[in-house]
Amino acid sequence: MIKMYDLAGADENRRFSPYCWRIRMALAHKGLNVECIPWYFTEKDKLKFSGQERVPVLIDGSKTISDSWEIAKYLESTYPDGPSLKIESGEVLFIKFWSETILHQQMLQILVLEIHNNLRPEDQNYFRESREKKFGQTLEEVVSNRNEHLNRMQKLLTPLRSTLYKQEYLSGESPGFSDYIVFGAFQWARCTSSISILNSDDIVYKWREKMLNMYEGLALNAVSYPV
Amino acid sequence: MIKMYDLAGADENRRFSPYCWRIRMALAHKGLNVECIPWYFTEKDKLKFSGQERVPVLIDGSKTISDSWEIAKYLESTYPDGPSLKIESGEVLFIKFWSETILHQQMLQILVLEIHNNLRPEDQNYFRESREKKFGQTLEEVVSNRNEHLNRMQKLLTPLRSTLYKQEYLSGESPGFSDYIVFGAFQWARCTSSISILNSDDIVYKWREKMLNMYEGLALNAVSYPV
Repeated sequence: MIKMYDLAGADENRRFSPYCWRIRMALAHKGLNVECIPWYFTEKDKLKFSGQERVPVLIDGSKTISDSWEIAKYLESTYPDGPSLKIESGEVLFIKFWSETILHQQMLQILVLEIHNNLRPEDQNYFRESREKKFGQTLEEVVSNRNEHLNRMQKLLTPLRSTLYKQEYLSGESPGFSDYIVFGAFQWARCTSSISILNSDDIVYKWREKMLNMYEGLALNAVSYPV
Repeated sequence: MIKMYDLAGADENRRFSPYCWRIRMALAHKGLNVECIPWYFTEKDKLKFSGQERVPVLIDGSKTISDSWEIAKYLESTYPDGPSLKIESGEVLFIKFWSETILHQQMLQILVLEIHNNLRPEDQNYFRESREKKFGQTLEEVVSNRNEHLNRMQKLLTPLRSTLYKQEYLSGESPGFSDYIVFGAFQWARCTSSISILNSDDIVYKWREKMLNMYEGLALNAVSYPV
């Protein structure tokens, strides 16, 4: 069976990485089972075999693949019989980078303290130090103007909202990897905090509900906080 | 021959609408000639036949099509023998809305006074009144913190920049309508002002250069300001 190293919290069943979630969803999309191995922020050594230090790492027989984009391309070419992940058009790469450089950055400024609070103590030290260095602020300072960040999030989601008014999924009339990429960010929020990011009358909320319910509630039933 | 109503400035050869430019480029992509008819902001009456008040409006024989997205779909289905505009994947719609709600809005806050200054006096009155109402500020106030808006623009372009490091065009290894959509915003800037939006070492600048030189310099040779 395919194995995947998956970021875990103090509760080892709390799996919250947006990059891992996009692959969990992509595997389910392809109808592939996976055994997820909990991995913690400070276990860099355990990933040495992959030649880098980040999850997800996928192990499929003799193959080891890291980087979620490379994993998606691997799944698409290795398992062409499953439904397509629809990653061939150039614009999907833009969605990836928009998610990672705009959506994730905004999300992190809302969630960073909650993420910290969900980690094992030894991981908390690493997380706090590395993130505070990046922000040039304490985690508490970052989240102190959370309402402003929640407002910015609403504005930032405008193009996603407008797209979902016109079609069922970001990828068109059926879901594709671009949906899983963006959904990963919302699942990151859901698995680490009860902060409400979306209003229930938002079409993005409705889209997220569809994503949560896919694949027998794979994402819905994950260890998370009720919103 | 296909005809298109095209937004014009006080110099009737200055054609600066980002929505019209995406269609000019799409027509050239398809190898189609077009006769562009200058149209001014206050000539709402002249578009009545199209059932709405905005350009571009395309006239192809007995067909009248308005809305740049509808025009692109029309060109793709009516002229399937020309190179594809690659609008079928769902993510292209996200690019459209990202451009219109994020990129255009930021661009407008940089350019709004320059756009005004390029119009006929009667169009200036209409433009100033409608835009000042929208912003809740005078045009002069909007552009007073232009440097801040130029900085925001740099950040906003991050996903485009990252994408262009990985592939030649937003649409992949060859240009598609999503490239023309985003390029339209830069051509809007180039045709209305000499404000430098991009540094020459920016990969987005290099991409824009390629776009300017396409189709025998269609966009390069347009009436514009040297940058």
